[in-house]
Amino acid sequence: MNWFETPEALMPLARIAVIIGAAIALKILFRFTTRRLVGRLRKSVRNGAFSSDQRLMARTKTIAAISNNFATWLLLITATVMVLSELGIDVGALIAVSTILGAAIGFGAQSLVKDILSGIFIVFEDQYGVGDWIQVDDVSGEVERIGLRITEIRDVQGTLWFIRNGEIIKVGNSSQEWAIALVDLSFDYQNDVEQVKHIIGEVGKQIKADAEWASQILEDPQVLGLTKISGERFVIRTTFKTIPGKQWAIGREFRQRCKSAFDQAGIKLLQIQRINPEV
Amino acid sequence: MNWFETPEALMPLARIAVIIGAAIALKILFRFTTRRLVGRLRKSVRNGAFSSDQRLMARTKTIAAISNNFATWLLLITATVMVLSELGIDVGALIAVSTILGAAIGFGAQSLVKDILSGIFIVFEDQYGVGDWIQVDDVSGEVERIGLRITEIRDVQGTLWFIRNGEIIKVGNSSQEWAIALVDLSFDYQNDVEQVKHIIGEVGKQIKADAEWASQILEDPQVLGLTKISGERFVIRTTFKTIPGKQWAIGREFRQRCKSAFDQAGIKLLQIQRINPEV
Amino acid sequence: MNWFETPEALMPLARIAVIIGAAIALKILFRFTTRRLVGRLRKSVRNGAFSSDQRLMARTKTIAAISNNFATWLLLITATVMVLSELGIDVGALIAVSTILGAAIGFGAQSLVKDILSGIFIVFEDQYGVGDWIQVDDVSGEVERIGLRITEIRDVQGTLWFIRNGEIIKVGNSSQEWAIALVDLSFDYQNDVEQVKHIIGEVGKQIKADAEWASQILEDPQVLGLTKISGERFVIRTTFKTIPGKQWAIGREFRQRCKSAFDQAGIKLLQIQRINPEV
Amino acid sequence: MNWFETPEALMPLARIAVIIGAAIALKILFRFTTRRLVGRLRKSVRNGAFSSDQRLMARTKTIAAISNNFATWLLLITATVMVLSELGIDVGALIAVSTILGAAIGFGAQSLVKDILSGIFIVFEDQYGVGDWIQVDDVSGEVERIGLRITEIRDVQGTLWFIRNGEIIKVGNSSQEWAIALVDLSFDYQNDVEQVKHIIGEVGKQIKADAEWASQILEDPQVLGLTKISGERFVIRTTFKTIPGKQWAIGREFRQRCKSAFDQAGIKLLQIQRINPEV
Amino acid sequence: MNWFETPEALMPLARIAVIIGAAIALKILFRFTTRRLVGRLRKSVRNGAFSSDQRLMARTKTIAAISNNFATWLLLITATVMVLSELGIDVGALIAVSTILGAAIGFGAQSLVKDILSGIFIVFEDQYGVGDWIQVDDVSGEVERIGLRITEIRDVQGTLWFIRNGEIIKVGNSSQEWAIALVDLSFDYQNDVEQVKHIIGEVGKQIKADAEWASQILEDPQVLGLTKISGERFVIRTTFKTIPGKQWAIGREFRQRCKSAFDQAGIKLLQIQRINPEV
Amino acid sequence: MNWFETPEALMPLARIAVIIGAAIALKILFRFTTRRLVGRLRKSVRNGAFSSDQRLMARTKTIAAISNNFATWLLLITATVMVLSELGIDVGALIAVSTILGAAIGFGAQSLVKDILSGIFIVFEDQYGVGDWIQVDDVSGEVERIGLRITEIRDVQGTLWFIRNGEIIKVGNSSQEWAIALVDLSFDYQNDVEQVKHIIGEVGKQIKADAEWASQILEDPQVLGLTKISGERFVIRTTFKTIPGKQWAIGREFRQRCKSAFDQAGIKLLQIQRINPEV
Amino acid sequence: MNWFETPEALMPLARIAVIIGAAIALKILFRFTTRRLVGRLRKSVRNGAFSSDQRLMARTKTIAAISNNFATWLLLITATVMVLSELGIDVGALIAVSTILGAAIGFGAQSLVKDILSGIFIVFEDQYGVGDWIQVDDVSGEVERIGLRITEIRDVQGTLWFIRNGEIIKVGNSSQEWAIALVDLSFDYQNDVEQVKHIIGEVGKQIKADAEWASQILEDPQVLGLTKISGERFVIRTTFKTIPGKQWAIGREFRQRCKSAFDQAGIKLLQIQRINPEV
Repeated sequence: MNWFETPEALMPLARIAVIIGAAIALKILFRFTTRRLVGRLRKSVRNGAFSSDQRLMARTKTIAAISNNFATWLLLITATVMVLSELGIDVGALIAVSTILGAAIGFGAQSLVKDILSGIFIVFEDQYGVGDWIQVDDVSGEVERIGLRITEIRDVQGTLWFIRNGEIIKVGNSSQEWAIALVDLSFDYQNDVEQVKHIIGEVGKQIKADAEWASQILEDPQVLGLTKISGERFVIRTTFKTIPGKQWAIGREFRQRCKSAFDQAGIKLLQIQRINPEV
Repeated sequence: MNWFETPEALMPLARIAVIIGAAIALKILFRFTTRRLVGRLRKSVRNGAFSSDQRLMARTKTIAAISNNFATWLLLITATVMVLSELGIDVGALIAVSTILGAAIGFGAQSLVKDILSGIFIVFEDQYGVGDWIQVDDVSGEVERIGLRITEIRDVQGTLWFIRNGEIIKVGNSSQEWAIALVDLSFDYQNDVEQVKHIIGEVGKQIKADAEWASQILEDPQVLGLTKISGERFVIRTTFKTIPGKQWAIGREFRQRCKSAFDQAGIKLLQIQRINPEV
Repeated sequence: MNWFETPEALMPLARIAVIIGAAIALKILFRFTTRRLVGRLRKSVRNGAFSSDQRLMARTKTIAAISNNFATWLLLITATVMVLSELGIDVGALIAVSTILGAAIGFGAQSLVKDILSGIFIVFEDQYGVGDWIQVDDVSGEVERIGLRITEIRDVQGTLWFIRNGEIIKVGNSSQEWAIALVDLSFDYQNDVEQVKHIIGEVGKQIKADAEWASQILEDPQVLGLTKISGERFVIRTTFKTIPGKQWAIGREFRQRCKSAFDQAGIKLLQIQRINPEV
Repeated sequence: MNWFETPEALMPLARIAVIIGAAIALKILFRFTTRRLVGRLRKSVRNGAFSSDQRLMARTKTIAAISNNFATWLLLITATVMVLSELGIDVGALIAVSTILGAAIGFGAQSLVKDILSGIFIVFEDQYGVGDWIQVDDVSGEVERIGLRITEIRDVQGTLWFIRNGEIIKVGNSSQEWAIALVDLSFDYQNDVEQVKHIIGEVGKQIKADAEWASQILEDPQVLGLTKISGERFVIRTTFKTIPGKQWAIGREFRQRCKSAFDQAGIKLLQIQRINPEV
Repeated sequence: MNWFETPEALMPLARIAVIIGAAIALKILFRFTTRRLVGRLRKSVRNGAFSSDQRLMARTKTIAAISNNFATWLLLITATVMVLSELGIDVGALIAVSTILGAAIGFGAQSLVKDILSGIFIVFEDQYGVGDWIQVDDVSGEVERIGLRITEIRDVQGTLWFIRNGEIIKVGNSSQEWAIALVDLSFDYQNDVEQVKHIIGEVGKQIKADAEWASQILEDPQVLGLTKISGERFVIRTTFKTIPGKQWAIGREFRQRCKSAFDQAGIKLLQIQRINPEV
Repeated sequence: MNWFETPEALMPLARIAVIIGAAIALKILFRFTTRRLVGRLRKSVRNGAFSSDQRLMARTKTIAAISNNFATWLLLITATVMVLSELGIDVGALIAVSTILGAAIGFGAQSLVKDILSGIFIVFEDQYGVGDWIQVDDVSGEVERIGLRITEIRDVQGTLWFIRNGEIIKVGNSSQEWAIALVDLSFDYQNDVEQVKHIIGEVGKQIKADAEWASQILEDPQVLGLTKISGERFVIRTTFKTIPGKQWAIGREFRQRCKSAFDQAGIKLLQIQRINPEV
Repeated sequence: MNWFETPEALMPLARIAVIIGAAIALKILFRFTTRRLVGRLRKSVRNGAFSSDQRLMARTKTIAAISNNFATWLLLITATVMVLSELGIDVGALIAVSTILGAAIGFGAQSLVKDILSGIFIVFEDQYGVGDWIQVDDVSGEVERIGLRITEIRDVQGTLWFIRNGEIIKVGNSSQEWAIALVDLSFDYQNDVEQVKHIIGEVGKQIKADAEWASQILEDPQVLGLTKISGERFVIRTTFKTIPGKQWAIGREFRQRCKSAFDQAGIKLLQIQRINPEV
C-alpha cells in the first residue's frame, strides 16, 4: 500500500490528488462523449419534412447541458465522499443514508424517469412534431408543444390535453408524408353498380383536374369495388392519396360534389360514412 | 490515518470537527442551490394568462421551505450517526434498522411520492389553474383547489371531486387561451345545401356583429361543408373560436337563433348535437 | 478509539451509556416533534362546515399515540441490538433475520400501508366526513364511518359498503358547501321556446318564494337556454344552487310543480332526466 | 471486548449464555405482548349484532397461537446461527442462502400474505359474518365460511364461490343493522299523481299494520315524490326500512298487494323495477 | 476463537465437523417437521363428500417428497460453501453469483411460485375436485385434472381449458353439497297470479312425488312471489333444492311439465329464463 | 488458515486447485442431474394421442443442452473470479459491476424469462401440440409452431398470430381426446315438442348409421330437452360426441339434414345457433 | 498474498498487470463469442419468403456492434475501478454511487429494455417484415419500419402508427405464406340450398379459371355448407386460399361476380359479411 518509498504521512495526500485528478478527467471525458454521441444521434435522425432542424438542435443542446450538469454533481459528490474517506472518516453512514434517500426518490419518481425517457425517444425518433394531427387513445388533435415529460394536444373543440409521454403506448400520426381521404358511399341495391362507379370516377377526375385541388392530391383517386352488400344497399369505397392535413377538406369537397352529381343522375345517396373526428 | 504529527488521542475530535463543518457547509450549499434552482424554474415558466404570479410565488416558497426542512433533518441524522461512529460505537445496527424502516415506509408511500411529484409538475407546467374547466377521465368540472397531493374539481351538479394527482394520466383543459364552440346541425336530405349554408352563415354573422357577443368571439365563424350524409339527413358543422369559458353560452345562443331563422325559412332542424356535459 | 485516558476495560460501559442516553434523547425529541407537527397540521386544516373539530382532535391524538408507540419500540430494539454489539456479540445474524422478516412483512403489507396513509390524508384533507353523501366508482351513499384502513358507506338500499382507502382514486362529495339541483325538461318541437322558458321561470320563482324552500336555495334558479334539439323535441335545463343534501328534494318538488304548471298550460312534458341514483 | 478480567477462553461461553438468555426473554416478552395486544383489539371491536363473540374469541386465539409458533421458530433459528457464529464458524454463506430463499418465497407468496392480512382485518373490522348476504364484484350470496385466505359465498343458484380475501377491494353487506326495501312503480302519464300516491300510501300502511310484517319494518314506509317523468309514464318510489334479510320478502309482498290494489282501482302498473338479484 | 486448549491446526477440522453435524441434524428435523405438519393439515381438512381421501393422501405425500428434496439440496449447497469457507477459500464471489442467479430466476418465476402455492391451497381447502362443475371467469365446465400449476376443465363443447391456478381469483363450484334449480316463468299481465301460482305449485309437487326425481330433490319446491312486473307481463320464480349435478336435468323436466300444464290450462308461457350455460 | 504444515507460499496454489476441482465436479454433477431430471420428467409426461414422442424427445434435448451451456458459463465465471481473488486482487468492483449489470438485464428481461418458463410448461404439460385447434383470448386457430417464447396460430382467415407464451393465462384446446358438436334448433311455440324431438332423433340416428360419418361419432347423439322457451319459440339442443376436429363438419351435415327433414315435415326452423368461429 | 519471492513493493504493479491483461482477454473473448452466437442464430432463423437476407444481415451486425461497444465500456470502467483499488484508494463510495445511479436508471428504463428485447426477438423470430399487413390490438396496417424500440404501421387511412415493441402481446400477420379470402353470403330461407351452392361453385370456378386471377389462387375455392340458419335466411361460406396480400382483391372480385350471377338467376343477396378493415 505504500508506493516506491513515498513517506507514509504523505500517502493520503497523494491518494487525494489521484482522486481529484480522476474526477476532472472523467468530467472532461464525459463532456466529450456526450457531445460526440449527440452529434452522431443527430446525424442518424431521419430528415423528415416536418421536424424543423432548429428545434432538434435546440433540444439536443438542452439534453446535453442537463446531462452535463447531472454528471458534474455526481462526480463532485463522489469525489467529496472519497476524499472524506481518505481523511480517515468512516463514510458508511453517509453512504447508507444516501442509498436510502436515492432509492426512495428513485422509487417514487420512476414514472417521471419513464416519461422523460419516452419524451427523448419521441423527439429523436421524430414520432410527431408541433403542428401534426395525432391520435392517442381516445384523444386526437393538433400537437401544440412536445415537452420532455408531457405532450400538449389541442383537440377539435379547442380543449388542450396534457398527456404524459410515458403513457403513450401507441400513437397515430395523420400528418406524415401523405394521407388518404377515404370515402364510403352507399346506394340502393337496385342501382347499377357500373353506372354508379362511373359517376364516382368522373367526380374524382374533376376534383383532380381542378386547379384548386390538383396540388393537394398526390395520386389519381381510386374507386375500389364492392366492399359490402346487404339486401338493401351496396357500398363503394373511393380513396385519394393527398398531402397530409388536406384529407378532410378533400373528403368534404368530394362528398358535396358527389351529392350534386347523383342528384342530377336521380340516384339517392343512402349514407356517407364519417371517417374521422376532425371533419 | 494520522495527519502531520497530530497527537493520536485528538484525531477523533479533529474528525468530528470535519464532519460538523462539512454538514454545515452542505446545508448552506443546499439552501443556496435550492433558491437558485427555484429562481430559474420560476423564470422559465410560461407566463400564461390564467396562472396568477402570486400563487406561483407562494407555492414555490412552500416547496423550497419543505425541501430545506427535509434536507436539514437528513444532514442532522447523518452527522449524528457519523459522530457516534467516530466515538467508537458500532452503528451497523442503527443503519440496518433505519434501512428497513426507510424501505418499508418508502414502499408503502410510493403512490404518495408519485402524487406529490405530479402535483409539483402540474403547477410548474401550468397544466391548469383554479377556475379552469378541466376534464379528467369521466369527471369534468371547475378546478377549486390544486393541492400537492390532490386536485379538487366541482362538477356541473355541484359535486366536489377529489382526484389524486399521480393518477392523472391525461387531462383536458377547456380554458386555455381560446376555445371552440362547435355546433352540428342536421337537416332533411331534400333541403338545398347551399340555402342551408347561407342561412347558417347569416346567423353566424349576426352573432359576431352583436355587441353583446362580439368581444367574446375571436374569429369569424366558419361554416364547414357536409360532414355526414345518410339517406334521411345531412349534417353541417359550424365552429366559433371564442375566449375560453364562453364556448357553451355562444353555442346555446347560436342554436336558439338558428331555430328561429329556420322556423322562419320553414326548414325543420332534425338534430343539434350536444357537445359538452356543461351546456 | 480510546478517549482521554479512560481505562480500556471501562470503554464498553461508556459506550453503552452513550447509546442509552442517545435513545432516550431521541425518544423525547420524537415525542416533541410529533406533537408540534400534529399541532401545525391541525392549524392548517381547512375549517369546513362538516368536519367536527372534536373528531379531528380525537383522531389526531390517536395517530400521535400510535406513532409514539411505534417509535418507542423501534428505539428499544435498536438500542438493545447496539448494546449486544458492544458486549462483543456478533449481531450480523440478528440483523439479517430481522431484515428478511421486515422485508417479507413489508412486502405483503404494502397495500395495508397504502390504505392507512390514504386514510390519514382523507381525514387531514377533510375529503369527506361522517354523514356526507359521496360517490366512489359505482357505489354512492352516506358515509357511516371513516376508519384508517376502510371507509364505510351506506347506499340507497341500505347495503353497507366497506371500501379500502388506498383504492379510492377519485371520490365525489355531494355535501360540501353547496350543491346544484339540475333538472332537464324536454318538450315537443312545436312548442314555443319562450313560453316554455317563461313557465319554467315562474315555477322556479314560486319555489324560491316559498317559505318552506327559501332557506335551502342559495341563489335564484337559472333557466339556461336550449341544450339539445332533435327533430322531435327540445331540452331546457334549469339549475338551483342549494344547501348540500337538499338538491334531490328540491329537484323532486320542482318536477312535481312543473308537471302541474304544464298540465294547466296544456303542454306535455316529454321527459325529465334523472340526475342521481339517490332521488 | 473482554469484560472485567473474565478469562479469555470463557468469553464465547459467556456470550452464548447471553444469546440464549436474550432469546428466552424475547420469547416471553413476545408472548406477553401478543396476548395484551389481542386482548385490547378484542375490546375495541364493535359489538355488532351478527358476529358471535365465541367465533371471534376462537379466531383470536388461533391467530395468537400461529404468531407465537412463528416467533418461536424465528428466535430458534436466529439464536442457533448466532451460537454457531460464536463458535467461530463463518455464517456468511448460511445467511446468504437464507436471504435468497426467504426473498424467493416471500416474493412468490406476496399475494398469500396479502390474502391473510386482509382476512385478519375482515374479521377484526367485522365487515361480515357467517350468514350475512354480501356482494363482491358481480357475485352476491350468503357467507358460508370466512377463512384467513378465502371467503366462501353461496349464491342464489346454490353455487359456492371461493373468493380470495386480498382481492376484495370493496364489499357490500346487506345484513348490517337495517336494510331498505326500495320499490319503484311506474304509471301511465295520464294518471293522477296524488291518487296514485294515496293508494301506495294506503298499501304501505296496511303492511305496516299487519301483525305478520309489523315486527320486521323499522320505520313507516316513505312514499317519495316523482323520480322520473317521460312522455309515457311517471315513476313513484317507495322505501321501507326493515330488519336486515327481510327487505326482499317485504318487497315481494308489497308488489303483490300493490297489484291487487291498482287492479281494483282500475290503474295498470307499467313496470316494477327489480332491485336485487336475490328476490 | 480457540476452544479449551484445542490445537490451533485442528480447529478448521472441528468446525467442519460441527457444520456437517448441524446439516444432518437440520435435515432430520426438517423431515420430522414436514411429516408432522402434513399430518396435522390432513386432519384439519374438511371431509367433503367429493374429495376422495386417497387422492389427498397421494398428493400430500408428493408435496412432502418435493419439499424434502428441495431442503436436502439447499442444505447440501450451504454446507459445501461453508466447508469451502473453512478451508480458507474466499466464497464472496460464489455467494454473489448465486445471489444474482437466484434473484434472476426467482424474479422470472414468481408467477410459477404463485401458481403452485395456489394449487396447494386449492387442494387443501378442497375448493373443487375432479368431476365437479366449476366456473372460472367466463369458462365453466367439468374439472378433469387438478395439477399443482394448472387446472384442466372440459366445457360443454368438449373444449379442454388449461387455467393457471394463480390466476383463479374467484371460482364458483356448482357441485358442493347441494344445488338449486331456479326457474323464472313469465306470464301475460292479464292472468290471475293466484291461479298461476297454484298450477306451478301442482307441477312442483308432482315432480317431487315422482319416484324418478324424488331422491334428487332435497326440499319441497318453493314458489316465490312476484319478482318482476311490467305493463305486459309478470314473473314467478320457483326454486328446487337438489343434489349437486342434477339441477339442470330437474330444470329441464320442470320446464317441460309446466309447458304441458299451462297448455292444458290455456295459459301461454311468455318466457323461461335460461339459467346456466350447461342445460 | 494454514493446513497441516503446508508451506505458507503454496497455500494459494492449493486453494486454487480446490476451486478448479470443485468447479469441474459441479459441472459433472449438474450434467448428471439434468439428464436424470429430464429423463424422469419424460416418463411422467402423459402419453397423449397428439404429441409425437419424437418432438418431445428433441425438445427435451434442446432444453438440457441450453441448461448445460448456461451452467458451464456460470461456473467458468465464478471460478475465474475466485481464482483472481486468491491471487490477491480485490474483486469487489468486479462483483459490484456484475451485480448491477445482472440486475438491470434481469429486470428488463423478466417477461422474457416468464415467456420461456411458460413455454417449457406448455410442452411438458402437453397443453397443445402442432395441428391442434386452440383458443386464446379472442384468437382461435390451428397451432403452427410452439416456440419457447411464442406460439404461432393460424386463424380461419389465414392470419398467422404470434402470441407470447407468458401471456397465455387460459387456453382452450378443441382437439384433445374428443369433442362435442352442439346444435341448438329453435321452433315456433305452436309446434308439438314430442314430434320435433322425434324428427331430430331420426336425423341423428341416420347420420350415426351413415358409413361416412359413423367412424367419427363416438357416442349416440343425445337430444336434450327444452333449454329455452319464449312466447314465440322453444329451443331443442342436440349433442354429438365426436373425434376431435370433426365436430364442425358433423354440425354442418346435421344442420343441412335437419333443414331437409323439417322442410318435408312442413316445420320451419327459426334459428340455428352458430357455435364456433370455425364452421 | 505475496507470490514466490516477488518484492512486496512490486506486488500492486503485478496485480494491475493481471487486471489489465484479464480485461483485454475478456474483451477478445466477448467479441469472439458474440460473433459466433450471432452466426449461429442467423443460421437457425427460418428462411421465410418475406424477410430479405440483407436486412437481417445488417441488423445482426448492428446488434453485435452495440453489444461490443457496451461491453468495452463496462470492462473499461470495471478495470479502472480495480486499478484505483489496487493503488490503495477506497472505492466503496465510488461503487455505492454507481450502484444507486445504475439502479435508478435501470428502474426507470425497464420498459425501454423490454421494448428493445422484444424488438430483437421480433426480428430474429421473423414475426413480420417491412411491407407485411399486420394487426396489433385495434390497429391494422402495413409495416413501414421495424425499429429496435418501435414498429411503424401505416393504416388504411394513411395514419402512421408508432407502437412500442414491448407492448405487442399478440400480433396477427396476414402476409405470411398464404392467406384466405373468406366470403359469407346470406340468402332468403325460401331459396334452394343446392341451387345456391351450385351457382356459387360456378362463380368460384370461373375466377380460378380466369387468367388474371389464376396465379393468385393457390387452391380450388371451397363452398362450405350451411353455417347459420334463421327463420329468414341461411348463410353459405366460401373460402379461397390465395397468395398473401391478394385476399381482399379476390374477395371484392368474387362478391361482384356473385352479384351479377345471382341477379341473372333472380336471387337476391341478403348480406355479404365484411371480413376485414382493409377491403
